[in-house]
Amino acid sequence: MKDKLLYEGKAKQVFTVADNPNLLVLSYKNDATAFNGEKKAQFQGKGRYNNLISAKVFEYLHEHGVNSHFKEALNETEQLVEKTTIIPLEVVVRNVAAGSIVRRIGMQEKTIFTPPLVELFYKKDELGDPLINDEHALLLTDVTEAELNQIKEMALRVNEQLQAFFKEIHLQLVDFKLEFGRNPNGEIVLSDEVSPDTCRLWDIATGEKMDKDVFREDLGDLVTVYDNILSRLEAKQ
Amino acid sequence: MKDKLLYEGKAKQVFTVADNPNLLVLSYKNDATAFNGEKKAQFQGKGRYNNLISAKVFEYLHEHGVNSHFKEALNETEQLVEKTTIIPLEVVVRNVAAGSIVRRIGMQEKTIFTPPLVELFYKKDELGDPLINDEHALLLTDVTEAELNQIKEMALRVNEQLQAFFKEIHLQLVDFKLEFGRNPNGEIVLSDEVSPDTCRLWDIATGEKMDKDVFREDLGDLVTVYDNILSRLEAKQ
Repeated sequence: MKDKLLYEGKAKQVFTVADNPNLLVLSYKNDATAFNGEKKAQFQGKGRYNNLISAKVFEYLHEHGVNSHFKEALNETEQLVEKTTIIPLEVVVRNVAAGSIVRRIGMQEKTIFTPPLVELFYKKDELGDPLINDEHALLLTDVTEAELNQIKEMALRVNEQLQAFFKEIHLQLVDFKLEFGRNPNGEIVLSDEVSPDTCRLWDIATGEKMDKDVFREDLGDLVTVYDNILSRLEAKQ
Repeated sequence: MKDKLLYEGKAKQVFTVADNPNLLVLSYKNDATAFNGEKKAQFQGKGRYNNLISAKVFEYLHEHGVNSHFKEALNETEQLVEKTTIIPLEVVVRNVAAGSIVRRIGMQEKTIFTPPLVELFYKKDELGDPLINDEHALLLTDVTEAELNQIKEMALRVNEQLQAFFKEIHLQLVDFKLEFGRNPNGEIVLSDEVSPDTCRLWDIATGEKMDKDVFREDLGDLVTVYDNILSRLEAKQ
């Protein structure tokens, strides 16, 4: 099914699909990177966990009315998606203060954001993915003001759905990063991945970090943690 | 008239006024600082220029319907202002790309912003005055959403007025930083100073930089440049 390697990112390879220019295959890699690529490692099995967890997230979101590029998991490490042109924005939704926002604006760690906080970052490695405001987003991307509002509303809707999704497996959704793309019809849909690489997830009972912070902060074995999340997701079904 | 030193900033001292708790005296210093205080120098006469130029700007804005804290210049280096509680935001309006925005989001230098771009920074030295978005501003200050919109509208109104003001003396207003404060009636008014320390001004004929960038980038004698601006302002009246 997959044809030519179109693009290789930090966490995934993107392949064209033979005979269908409107589809892509995403192949999840075992690489972990943090701090804008400064910290790197490989974890056997990580690609599989992110692929399977992300597939479950997208299936759940689809059932709850959120349009995404996701079609289906093809195998343990690959998924079929609709081809989208990625909008170079990282849309971060925060329910609780953790990570960069603590350093950046001095927000007290664990502050609860009511309503949840939406932040936009310009997806540009060489600039370190800087925080931007709405006016910058309109200057730096091809989205209109209405589409930017739609993106933020979708991000908040995804947050509501995912808070419930992860609560069922006893995880608190602290924050997460989304990317959006434009599909062949010009519509904006949720794109990229949603996995423990792109979410902060804390165990509700113990407060333990169960996401890429385990790698960022050398807190233990990343694969054990990701395996635990997948097991919880499989058990709930 | 001035009584006790209330606060000393990088560019000004703030004094209470005997017998009137609703007024303050601002005394402009000869210090120049840049890069969040990392570069420092003293320039004989600089305080005088900023005081007199800022007074002319506030008088012009007052004539054109912009409420500010400004009452009157008391002497060569001091002005009388209404006491305000400063809102910890630096409101930057950009007509042309220059300075930090070029480095921060990779905007091509001299890009024209139509409409002008408004940016908010959190006024917090120890964090290096980071860029923030509207939601951060609502979290970090006591302004309401309506007041934040009012602040941005005022900043754009000031921009229109100041573009005309400086054009009359053959200067292009590239960008500038404003601060706002809450007066004793709880109203939000323009506060702080508007001077070549807080504006980027380029000579329309030659393109020459005529503002604090002369100090930041070691382009020549700052006092000669500020004297030139004051002379142009005095000549037009």
